[in-house]
Amino acid sequence: MNRPKIVILGAGYGGMITTVKLQKMLGRNEADITLVNKHNYHYQTTWLHENAAGTLHHDHTRIKISDVVDLNRVELVQDTVVSLQPDEKKVTLENGELTYDYLVVGLGFEAATFGIQGLLENAFTINNINSARLIRDHIEYNFARYNNEKEDRQDLLNIVIGGAGFTGIEFAGELGNRVPELCKEYDIPREKVRIITVEASPTALPGFDEELVEYAMNYLESQGVEFKLGTMLKQVNENSIIVEKDEQQEEIPSSNVIWAAGVRGNSIVEETGFETARGRVKVSEDLRAPGHDDIFIVGDCALIMDKENDRPYPPTAQIAIQEAEVTAHNLKTLVHGGSKLEAFEPELQGTVASLGEGQAIGVVFGGKKLFGWKASVMKKIIDNRYLLKLGGVGLLLKKGKFNIFTK
Amino acid sequence: MNRPKIVILGAGYGGMITTVKLQKMLGRNEADITLVNKHNYHYQTTWLHENAAGTLHHDHTRIKISDVVDLNRVELVQDTVVSLQPDEKKVTLENGELTYDYLVVGLGFEAATFGIQGLLENAFTINNINSARLIRDHIEYNFARYNNEKEDRQDLLNIVIGGAGFTGIEFAGELGNRVPELCKEYDIPREKVRIITVEASPTALPGFDEELVEYAMNYLESQGVEFKLGTMLKQVNENSIIVEKDEQQEEIPSSNVIWAAGVRGNSIVEETGFETARGRVKVSEDLRAPGHDDIFIVGDCALIMDKENDRPYPPTAQIAIQEAEVTAHNLKTLVHGGSKLEAFEPELQGTVASLGEGQAIGVVFGGKKLFGWKASVMKKIIDNRYLLKLGGVGLLLKKGKFNIFTK
Repeated sequence: MNRPKIVILGAGYGGMITTVKLQKMLGRNEADITLVNKHNYHYQTTWLHENAAGTLHHDHTRIKISDVVDLNRVELVQDTVVSLQPDEKKVTLENGELTYDYLVVGLGFEAATFGIQGLLENAFTINNINSARLIRDHIEYNFARYNNEKEDRQDLLNIVIGGAGFTGIEFAGELGNRVPELCKEYDIPREKVRIITVEASPTALPGFDEELVEYAMNYLESQGVEFKLGTMLKQVNENSIIVEKDEQQEEIPSSNVIWAAGVRGNSIVEETGFETARGRVKVSEDLRAPGHDDIFIVGDCALIMDKENDRPYPPTAQIAIQEAEVTAHNLKTLVHGGSKLEAFEPELQGTVASLGEGQAIGVVFGGKKLFGWKASVMKKIIDNRYLLKLGGVGLLLKKGKFNIFTK
Repeated sequence: MNRPKIVILGAGYGGMITTVKLQKMLGRNEADITLVNKHNYHYQTTWLHENAAGTLHHDHTRIKISDVVDLNRVELVQDTVVSLQPDEKKVTLENGELTYDYLVVGLGFEAATFGIQGLLENAFTINNINSARLIRDHIEYNFARYNNEKEDRQDLLNIVIGGAGFTGIEFAGELGNRVPELCKEYDIPREKVRIITVEASPTALPGFDEELVEYAMNYLESQGVEFKLGTMLKQVNENSIIVEKDEQQEEIPSSNVIWAAGVRGNSIVEETGFETARGRVKVSEDLRAPGHDDIFIVGDCALIMDKENDRPYPPTAQIAIQEAEVTAHNLKTLVHGGSKLEAFEPELQGTVASLGEGQAIGVVFGGKKLFGWKASVMKKIIDNRYLLKLGGVGLLLKKGKFNIFTK
């Protein structure tokens, strides 16, 4: 009974794919595999903005771990990670501790708030199922309050999105669909509701192709989304925000502020003493933490530089999944006594941003631009491909997005 | 063109039935009829507790006025009544004024708060569509918050109902059905949620038959409803209540306090200078305000004594509807130049209190007691009979409750 113990922290994209691959690659007697996660479910982080807008139910976004992981093969510990002790090969949990021979860290992201005053207290972030559901209910509750107030509380109807990057744009697109439904449900004229995106860059979707950005902005504006570009979010109050453009400050009433302008790695990774940049560990080519041959880091906590432009790859699901595949392969090699590990080489398949029901923009297959419903179909294909990879046809049929024009 | 002007204030049970009857009884050239209401819809006050619990959508409870009132025949003024000037035969609205020859006051109820500290600020009352929808969303929002809080905020999960009278009991019954659904939606174990009714009387449903009360309490307790009887609600704070029993005070955490323990007539009636008791005008036998032969009062603002026990009849839909029928008849007599008005004589058809899906208790047809599903069916028959009276078969088919075991 001298099987190596592999402990995987976090059931996000990285942790789940590592686990699912390992349970296939390794024989029952070759290793003990333990997966640690707060909940008994995995969720698709890239769908959370839909849950937060209320256009997709969160049960569609989450997947019971036992539906894709063989719990006779993998031990699931439902607990919260508190800290790592690499020198002792130990992980401290809220309700216990675990030792390991190999550790996979897939602890995910935290919102980066850049020290904006009042942001932590008064803004929401789309972090997980609980927070996405809270945003949905928070907006609904404020809409319900509106017709019960004596004054005209415009702050209840203004929705502010901090950041017009990928997540902010996707969230704005969902709200474009959702707000008319909310207006019907709560007897509020559509023209009273404002959806305002605040972006510090001079453009929406910084880094995207200009033609795609223009398409996205035009479409979203036609859905009633307002853009405040080149505008800094300075402060978030309980019922308003303060923004600044060209050194002019403006106060905008809003009790619905959703911050979607930046993520960083999990702070546990930082506290462990790894060298990090915004909570992300600059891992070696084979995805191990520098100086720790027994620790792999996948997903949002791993920092990998794109040699072409000397900038880090963005923390996307696509890259997390590819990292997990390499990590599983490398763990198999180590368990089998090998030492020649595979180097991670991302295979970028393009990026598609949804703009709401049946609308998207993106770049796929070596630079080809896609607009509108074609991009929307591509987005669903990407999502469905992941489900197939994670849980096979059964999971795809259960949680896939099949209607090419709607959800 | 010397047609008398009939103005009806409020499209509740009393105002609507008066309007619908009058548009049938009077010829097109006999009178001008104006109906004044805040909204363009009528709603069934007796169903609001279901909307508040979230077991029935509020669109099922409300009826577009234009669906049952012929707006070529009756003028609908969508406005809010501010005050009455009986001496000038005038009604002041928020956005104008109206004069009348005959006035029908059907302005409905307000919550009676008995001066309990903090009640107005921190408790909700089931008054109308807006407030019922707010209660539904308030509870949902607090449930959504629970899993986002660092501490165990039990106040978010405790629902307190002030009063175990008719409305309190019916609301508790709906929550008994709703809470398990909410627990599923928000990932909360059912045993964490408390539904607590606080009642000053030593019994629930004071005035009801003892056997029926016992049945109701047993059933509701089996659904997880707790009863604190002989217990005074002393104070409502933002996140707790203070109750007193046998001179012992207790603080119970709750951020969901719904007051269902008493109604009074509309304060506009009081402010007009009519002699009132708790906002209700002691009307003459023919339902006119004392000293005002041109003003009829129907529904919750009218006080009529039951000669048998020298107590006022309760402000129920049943009585409001019967008063409206007599009022319409009397207005017809007056318009036709008659003077012999009909005296109101209530025909009590019994009372059925719902306890949730497929469960109720009641007394019908001269004292016969009903329990369980039979009472529930009877409740639906009563509700459907009203729809038939208000808007004929078309409305019944659209808004009726037909499934005898569920909604």
